[in-house]
Amino acid sequence: MEEKIKLWLKENKVKGIKLLQKLVQEDSMRGNESRAQAVIIEKCRRIGLSLDIWEIGEESLLNHPDFCSDRKDFSGNPNVVGVLKGSGGGKSIILNGHIDVVPPGERKDWQDDPFSGRIEQGKLYGRGSTDMKGGTVAMLLAIEAIISSGIKLKGDIIFQSVIEEESGGAGTLAAVLRGYKADGAIIPEPTNMKLFPKQQGSMWFRISVKGKSAHGGTKYEGVNAIEKSMKVIKKLEELETKRNRRITDPLYKNIPIPIPINIGKIHGGEWPSSVPDLAVLEGRMGIAPDETIEDAKKEMMACLEELAEKDSWFADYPLIVEWFGGRWLPGNLEADHPLISVISESFESVKKEKPVIEASPWATDGGILSNIGKTPVVVFGPGVTKAAHDVNEYIVLEDMFEASEIIALTLLKWCELS
Amino acid sequence: MEEKIKLWLKENKVKGIKLLQKLVQEDSMRGNESRAQAVIIEKCRRIGLSLDIWEIGEESLLNHPDFCSDRKDFSGNPNVVGVLKGSGGGKSIILNGHIDVVPPGERKDWQDDPFSGRIEQGKLYGRGSTDMKGGTVAMLLAIEAIISSGIKLKGDIIFQSVIEEESGGAGTLAAVLRGYKADGAIIPEPTNMKLFPKQQGSMWFRISVKGKSAHGGTKYEGVNAIEKSMKVIKKLEELETKRNRRITDPLYKNIPIPIPINIGKIHGGEWPSSVPDLAVLEGRMGIAPDETIEDAKKEMMACLEELAEKDSWFADYPLIVEWFGGRWLPGNLEADHPLISVISESFESVKKEKPVIEASPWATDGGILSNIGKTPVVVFGPGVTKAAHDVNEYIVLEDMFEASEIIALTLLKWCELS
Repeated sequence: MEEKIKLWLKENKVKGIKLLQKLVQEDSMRGNESRAQAVIIEKCRRIGLSLDIWEIGEESLLNHPDFCSDRKDFSGNPNVVGVLKGSGGGKSIILNGHIDVVPPGERKDWQDDPFSGRIEQGKLYGRGSTDMKGGTVAMLLAIEAIISSGIKLKGDIIFQSVIEEESGGAGTLAAVLRGYKADGAIIPEPTNMKLFPKQQGSMWFRISVKGKSAHGGTKYEGVNAIEKSMKVIKKLEELETKRNRRITDPLYKNIPIPIPINIGKIHGGEWPSSVPDLAVLEGRMGIAPDETIEDAKKEMMACLEELAEKDSWFADYPLIVEWFGGRWLPGNLEADHPLISVISESFESVKKEKPVIEASPWATDGGILSNIGKTPVVVFGPGVTKAAHDVNEYIVLEDMFEASEIIALTLLKWCELS
Repeated sequence: MEEKIKLWLKENKVKGIKLLQKLVQEDSMRGNESRAQAVIIEKCRRIGLSLDIWEIGEESLLNHPDFCSDRKDFSGNPNVVGVLKGSGGGKSIILNGHIDVVPPGERKDWQDDPFSGRIEQGKLYGRGSTDMKGGTVAMLLAIEAIISSGIKLKGDIIFQSVIEEESGGAGTLAAVLRGYKADGAIIPEPTNMKLFPKQQGSMWFRISVKGKSAHGGTKYEGVNAIEKSMKVIKKLEELETKRNRRITDPLYKNIPIPIPINIGKIHGGEWPSSVPDLAVLEGRMGIAPDETIEDAKKEMMACLEELAEKDSWFADYPLIVEWFGGRWLPGNLEADHPLISVISESFESVKKEKPVIEASPWATDGGILSNIGKTPVVVFGPGVTKAAHDVNEYIVLEDMFEASEIIALTLLKWCELS
């Protein structure tokens, strides 16, 4: 069986490259996912998957506590699910990829068109090539290899091409709410072929720090909100140290700060010679795999409240903390979960070496799949993180084919031969 | 003589109030000074001063190293000087007031029209009433009282109504360059009837702090410009402490920070989950009365360079320091200068108490008059600093009349009876 798969993949590389090129050439930025989804739909149809195509935005989604999106209109840009039904009795698996891509940024920094799909020295270039159309093609080729090789499996394979991953995961949440759950899931985000059983979650915060205005020449009559916000930043540094000291999971041993608190933005004051009465900080708080969003929020709030103990200004003018914008649930699978064992075996069989198993510094839709869908998730895919979201994004095509083979072998073992 | 003056002022209060009301009702914000100047010109003409009315903007002004303005067009809004020539042999005096007023700010916060000139319970309300049309009327009344009382003086009285004080002092600089200098000068800015022989100067700075961008989830791959800017702020606090420790002048004994360094504005980062690669600070550096602008700049630059000793980041990515926008020269008159003695005597004669002699926390056109015009300056006037630039600005009319009397008596003694 494995040999059949390997052979099919070897003989169908051109087909795979053409599919990826077509997908990359369809700019599928937020709100514009339909044409790339049409390519996916056509491919699923051709290889014989049962299709479920729907526009998300139903009440149960919009009212879900983990729904997090500022998008008003999802119409015309559907979620796509293609199912290969098993004969029964085996473990099911979700293969999840997102079709949305982030904006290309400064076009002048790109060597050519961001959606060129140009191929050069074994790399395919373009926004979305690594994040994560390459991963999606790897999954589709794996399924096609199995079907084309005449292999029947016991467990279901549920292929998903979702929207909105880059903006809070509404696409995958909608799929979960539609009932798609499984005994395991692979998300081939660009992990550079590492296995990520755990993923750092994150959420954004905004902290407004008050001051009291005065003329700069008599600054002692005022209270400088920028100086006060320095105390807040210092306190958040302490919190970051405290939170990271708790993380002893060996998966984090090579990561300097497993769950960072990043101050991404500050804006304070209006006039050089006035004492500013307001400074606003915005940042991102990393969430540990075994932590809930609520617990992380509570810990930050409690920490910030301590500021008032040493500086009564903060008691009289409490900080205003808002949780706004992005929020990504963490993922948390035991490193010895059977899914990890199976994918590791497949990895060794293809790569002739043991995989690196780590925790990811970023979240994926895996947080939603595992926390809400109760589906064990491993993130594993071709492409390097650094290339994602960067200009001149590319994927090494050979990595895509290797990932495809590893995924196909995993399907054989996980879903079992019928 | 003194009695004659007192009597005249007592009998002409209504005239003084009407003049102030007329001046306040003429909105004379920057670029719109002409109609208020027309009121001044008419008054000077009526009391018999020799008028010099000119539009500033000549090459020698624009090219002067202390010219500091972003105004492109001064046409139509003249400087006005009215001279009362003395009989000769006495000391001359400049009486300097600015006609420009700052914008009223939020109109909704004003009880009525910002240029109403409304009178209620002995106060006249409106933008510019305190800063400093009240002072200007006090000077004009003093001159008129002398002329109307038939008093002749030996020294010249040079009354000046200048533009641009609030925006860098180009009006007074133009008057100095036109040749107006004297043995002494009074500027009746709102000192709340205190004498300010010394004034804090100031200038604005902008410091750009570099970082290195990275994803917030892997913040350790970047360098946070906001965190680096905290070190800069801390360093500036040290500099402020060091600079203020040097100030031992008893005139500053009631002022907590004689020459503050104020951080008025900060802006850094664009995205909560990115490590910001740039933060920009803007602020105001106070300048000591006996200090030059150049020395203050040098001291700050040397201090900031020390940052690189403990943090090589600052050596590799030096701060970019700009001196932009406003710059006001300090004023520095010995507290025992004859001008202070004379005005103090006059004060005691009117108020039956000794004046408070202090250093001002803000600069005036006195810096230009004294540093460039080599004219000894005391700042003394009616009105409270707090009201200036604030909404519902007002002046206590009785203070204006008392200031007028003190100025008139000073003129008698300083310029000497003929």
